Amino acid sequence: MKLTRPTLIIDPEKTQRNLRAMKEKARQHNLIFRPHFKTHQSRAVGRWFAGMGIDKITVSSAGMAEYFAADGWKDITIAFPLNINEAEKINELAARVSLNVTILNQESIDRLNRVLQHPVGVFLKIDTGARRTGISHEHIDTARQLKEGIDHSANLQLKGLLTHAGHTYHAGSREEILEIHEQTRDRLVQLREKLEKGEEKLLISVGDTPSCSLADEFEGIDEVRPGNFIFFDLQQYKLNVCSIDDISVLVACPVVAKHKERGRIIVYGGAVHLSKDTFVEGSTRIYGYGMIVHEEGWVLPEEKIIVEGLSQEHGILNVTPYMMKRISIGDFVGILPVHSCLTANLMGGYYDMQGKFYDHFNR
Amino acid sequence: MKLTRPTLIIDPEKTQRNLRAMKEKARQHNLIFRPHFKTHQSRAVGRWFAGMGIDKITVSSAGMAEYFAADGWKDITIAFPLNINEAEKINELAARVSLNVTILNQESIDRLNRVLQHPVGVFLKIDTGARRTGISHEHIDTARQLKEGIDHSANLQLKGLLTHAGHTYHAGSREEILEIHEQTRDRLVQLREKLEKGEEKLLISVGDTPSCSLADEFEGIDEVRPGNFIFFDLQQYKLNVCSIDDISVLVACPVVAKHKERGRIIVYGGAVHLSKDTFVEGSTRIYGYGMIVHEEGWVLPEEKIIVEGLSQEHGILNVTPYMMKRISIGDFVGILPVHSCLTANLMGGYYDMQGKFYDHFNR
Repeated sequence: MKLTRPTLIIDPEKTQRNLRAMKEKARQHNLIFRPHFKTHQSRAVGRWFAGMGIDKITVSSAGMAEYFAADGWKDITIAFPLNINEAEKINELAARVSLNVTILNQESIDRLNRVLQHPVGVFLKIDTGARRTGISHEHIDTARQLKEGIDHSANLQLKGLLTHAGHTYHAGSREEILEIHEQTRDRLVQLREKLEKGEEKLLISVGDTPSCSLADEFEGIDEVRPGNFIFFDLQQYKLNVCSIDDISVLVACPVVAKHKERGRIIVYGGAVHLSKDTFVEGSTRIYGYGMIVHEEGWVLPEEKIIVEGLSQEHGILNVTPYMMKRISIGDFVGILPVHSCLTANLMGGYYDMQGKFYDHFNR
Repeated sequence: MKLTRPTLIIDPEKTQRNLRAMKEKARQHNLIFRPHFKTHQSRAVGRWFAGMGIDKITVSSAGMAEYFAADGWKDITIAFPLNINEAEKINELAARVSLNVTILNQESIDRLNRVLQHPVGVFLKIDTGARRTGISHEHIDTARQLKEGIDHSANLQLKGLLTHAGHTYHAGSREEILEIHEQTRDRLVQLREKLEKGEEKLLISVGDTPSCSLADEFEGIDEVRPGNFIFFDLQQYKLNVCSIDDISVLVACPVVAKHKERGRIIVYGGAVHLSKDTFVEGSTRIYGYGMIVHEEGWVLPEEKIIVEGLSQEHGILNVTPYMMKRISIGDFVGILPVHSCLTANLMGGYYDMQGKFYDHFNR
């Protein structure tokens, strides 16, 4: 493929390897595998999942649910607090697919009850410690009241408890991630015990890629919804969740300027391509927006090159004199993204090395 | 207009007021006004400029030049270091419009000479202190060599010296911005004197919105290329370059959760809508991703509400008990962007309050 401008490149082999590994892990632990499609947001990539027999997915908006429903997906959970302004769209979707929504307040139940003409599954969104959003796992009365509201709704059926332990992203070690994972599980299991009545069985659904990748103990958990694992990125690499070799997307950016005297190379590739999410590199704690790999095999060069600055369309690389000599104006450098979900969202589509295009919800 | 999901709202009146003010300033100072369209990236918004008689524009990529050329713009500068991989596209553009490119190395001249069949204007990209990219204003020999290369090229014509004094964005005060502006001007004027031969007249072109907004002295400067001024944003507000009332775009986001016990409201509106650029608020130096304004008149509420956290699609607002009572699940809150260029790029289109849609290059 002839590259001319910043291009998001996908490695189908690595991507499918990541997918197979996570699917196999879910199978071994007897878990429902409901991968989150907000990372790739691509019908074309989604078909690889379908090809492996996966038939349940997670998305983060009603619009994304529509996009994948149009491609034949029939069992979709919107794992985002219900936006009551889209209740009509939820109703339309529920007419066509088996749909689950995420609820954490009575307003959502009330609005759905006024609008729904088709059955919709519900997960209660539980906060097990991430403190972003959700019903606190300690607020048993709130959870119980909402459960009652759902149980009394004609078209709502409570499916289970859902959480995203996003605080694993701030963990300092593998051990800390596993501790959070266990704590999350224990808190959900305890809450479930207090909510279930009689023969009722509520599912426990967890989601974050760090836990799903590293944990080997899922007793009590019924469903996993990781998303980022499909591509991974430098954030996951820094958390020791993946290796560089597991990262399956990069942004190829042309070199437009070299500044030997200050060891800097400028690429056409900025905040509108990579996103402004950062990782922290080395003992000097440099904030990086990406890291360069060799074209061949996507391996790190002998001397690391960090994207240390980013404006709208410029990326600034700090390079050693040795690397400066090996990179020319017009060359393309491959930049591994810090946060692949945001980079994919910005780039709005992927190309593989043969030039085949893979669409994205956003374009 | 009935809102249902995160929506980028444009206030046409404020936008046109910002435009008139900058155009009038350029006229008063006898400057060529070549506004940068990378902020709005919209044909529809661009037509307001055309309607005011503006016929010269700046863009940041060959693709953006094509997009605006297709809408009738005939005089376009690509103010980004030439991407030699797009030389063919440059040649095609040059067949249709009066095109200027930005050059800072011999490789670019060589490649253009091999490809060009139509005349193209050139600006030398000069670094006057921002240290992002460009020929250092002190490297007179380099500038002279490049000038000679251009002068000997059949289809290239040197138009002048171009800089972006992006370091004004890190200035601590109005005075510091004005100091940078004067230093920039002086350095360019000195360099020009050393480059001009005989009757030759090179243009000096400067660009950043802080300088163009605050300065009142443009002696020696020929052209201004501000972009952000059309919308402004919280970054410019924090630099005292604009008032809150000048900010002419916001993202309307639905409230999806309220957490009274910790004073937090969650909106559907995250990094894929606002971008992860931050501003620093207050003496406690909180990093903010946006700030809420009232629906009426887009004024700040009595008690400020800062977007203090952002994940892919969630925004986290910290609110006082008083404001918590006044905001309900399902309400839309208006969030002023930190960096309007990146927010507009993510949202990919604008709506005005009557529901009229304004396109964006990215969609």
